[in-house]
Amino acid sequence: MYAVIMAGGSGTRFWPLSRKARPKQFLAIGTERPLLRETVDRLGPLIPPEKVYVVAGEHHAAPIRALLPDLPADHLLVEPCPRNTAPCVGLAAIHLARRDPQAVMAVLPADHHIGDGPGYRAVLAAAAERAREGEIVTLGIRPTRPETGYGYIRYDGTDPVVAANGVEVSRVERFVEKPPLEVARKYLASNRYLWNSGMFFFTAARILADIERYMPHLARTLKTIGAAIGTEAYPAALAEGFAGLKSVSIDYGVMEHATADPDLPPMRVVPSDFGWNDVGHWAAIADFAEADRDGNIVDGDAVLVDTRDSIVHVTRGTAAVIGVEGLVVVSTDDAVLVCPRGRAQDVKRIVTRLQRDGREELL
Amino acid sequence: MYAVIMAGGSGTRFWPLSRKARPKQFLAIGTERPLLRETVDRLGPLIPPEKVYVVAGEHHAAPIRALLPDLPADHLLVEPCPRNTAPCVGLAAIHLARRDPQAVMAVLPADHHIGDGPGYRAVLAAAAERAREGEIVTLGIRPTRPETGYGYIRYDGTDPVVAANGVEVSRVERFVEKPPLEVARKYLASNRYLWNSGMFFFTAARILADIERYMPHLARTLKTIGAAIGTEAYPAALAEGFAGLKSVSIDYGVMEHATADPDLPPMRVVPSDFGWNDVGHWAAIADFAEADRDGNIVDGDAVLVDTRDSIVHVTRGTAAVIGVEGLVVVSTDDAVLVCPRGRAQDVKRIVTRLQRDGREELL
Repeated sequence: MYAVIMAGGSGTRFWPLSRKARPKQFLAIGTERPLLRETVDRLGPLIPPEKVYVVAGEHHAAPIRALLPDLPADHLLVEPCPRNTAPCVGLAAIHLARRDPQAVMAVLPADHHIGDGPGYRAVLAAAAERAREGEIVTLGIRPTRPETGYGYIRYDGTDPVVAANGVEVSRVERFVEKPPLEVARKYLASNRYLWNSGMFFFTAARILADIERYMPHLARTLKTIGAAIGTEAYPAALAEGFAGLKSVSIDYGVMEHATADPDLPPMRVVPSDFGWNDVGHWAAIADFAEADRDGNIVDGDAVLVDTRDSIVHVTRGTAAVIGVEGLVVVSTDDAVLVCPRGRAQDVKRIVTRLQRDGREELL
Repeated sequence: MYAVIMAGGSGTRFWPLSRKARPKQFLAIGTERPLLRETVDRLGPLIPPEKVYVVAGEHHAAPIRALLPDLPADHLLVEPCPRNTAPCVGLAAIHLARRDPQAVMAVLPADHHIGDGPGYRAVLAAAAERAREGEIVTLGIRPTRPETGYGYIRYDGTDPVVAANGVEVSRVERFVEKPPLEVARKYLASNRYLWNSGMFFFTAARILADIERYMPHLARTLKTIGAAIGTEAYPAALAEGFAGLKSVSIDYGVMEHATADPDLPPMRVVPSDFGWNDVGHWAAIADFAEADRDGNIVDGDAVLVDTRDSIVHVTRGTAAVIGVEGLVVVSTDDAVLVCPRGRAQDVKRIVTRLQRDGREELL
């Protein structure tokens, strides 16, 4: 099994800590080490670094090499331009297919938090077992709230396949879009829906076959790029090929079609419970980081007086916070953020405003 | 008339902007220029800089000279150690008495805000008129709220002396200490009480006579220092003299006694209404600075989203504030402060904590 870590994110929701040049995967947010480093370390006992591939944009290549010195040099696959996850997965697949078309790829985001490492690796092992059979497997997180920010997976839990390690693997009925709140409540109550974690498992041969079936233009481009691997023509073929691609997610481009196709083996999902968190905004830290007895989560130099349930993250200077509750306070080298935990999603509005005002130095 | 500006304050309530080396009088807080500079400029039409004296601590001498290049070099009187206002006033009085014992001294704080400059100068002119007669005159601010943080002056408004410019000067009945809230409410309702502004007027001869009467130890010390003025012995006499003094306010040491003494001329007060503000803490800025249409007072580079009635002061970087109401946010070179406006008085608790923790670099 190989891990393919998608590290192309350019998240803005951790502004002012996250910037174009330093997106979330490079930050330690409620964690000891940067999320990308934690992702690689978490895989270690199951997938050692020499079987890890990382796909990322050109301007992040240097920081990734610095953060992952144990990653083989040719395992960093650079995307010349961002084209969402389908081209990203396809690029990794053509590289892996040259080595072993039957290699199982675990496609994983670089910037999520996992609370239960052993549980996570058990699920990965079970998913890989099915993927080796030529199936596509996804991880679905058991929802704990009526979240409207995620896609969902409707699944049939009645007749699971049980993996060698005892983990049950169910059938996907269908992928569904981010729901409105009322619908999300019904999903939660029904116990028939899981959050789409964006983690997929398949052999290189299987995903390339599906891309050929459902995304023929991408397939042709990948063939041209693949033919140039290991030659001097590769950079130009990659740049030209990617430039001509549309931005499409692997979910939309392949998974949804493959699920509905009766000629294909069933799409699988492992209903999972390993303390998953996509660390979507500052307030999400409270879901997994340890709070002090006042409910505060403090990282960096801070003095708190009569303050509760707040998230204080300081990378420059000292933050003094008096008499507030449920506030996010972030202080970095050149910017400060203050907002209630419930408004953490709106940090992107600040970024939008800065973009509109041409404040490039803050982006 | 001479102005004696007491610039010895070492306020901590504007932390993190105010520091030991840069107390409030050196800061522009809700104002265009630093409060000390504004104080000198405000006096200009009535008392030009060449008739202004400034009393301050040694470590503030250089910034004062930089801020007030128009102040004659020998008009900066340096206190070797802080001993509250009685020794400060006495020191200025012995310097002025050498020039002219009948010189009227307007003793004024360096770090207050005055909204109505012409009104203020009219009151000063009226007060000086009485002081020339050998009386002691104080300015009393008509209270607008039951403030418990100020001393009060009980006055008799029934039979005022009217100055040449029409300003009425009343008699002080007595000085009273900072009251509890219930008492402050009664003071406010009675219309018989004014806030003690800490601004006094008298001739050098009169205040030195009163110091001799009520503070004989201070009087002796001042005589020794006075005898050394203009000689090489001055610095040593000053240092030695001040070291042996107790810290006593001019209110407590002289005014309260002089008011009660039937052998002296009546103590006077000018009931005043010139937009006085002692700028006692961050939230006080809202009393005089202009707010935008959302009620926010912003100084420096800030991006506000859904934010109301907040005070945002930024001297380094950018502050982004989302979805809060009535908050104080201050960002300086090495520290950030976040607190509700109603807790601005508690900023001193942060300073106390930093002192306890030996964080000298932040004090």
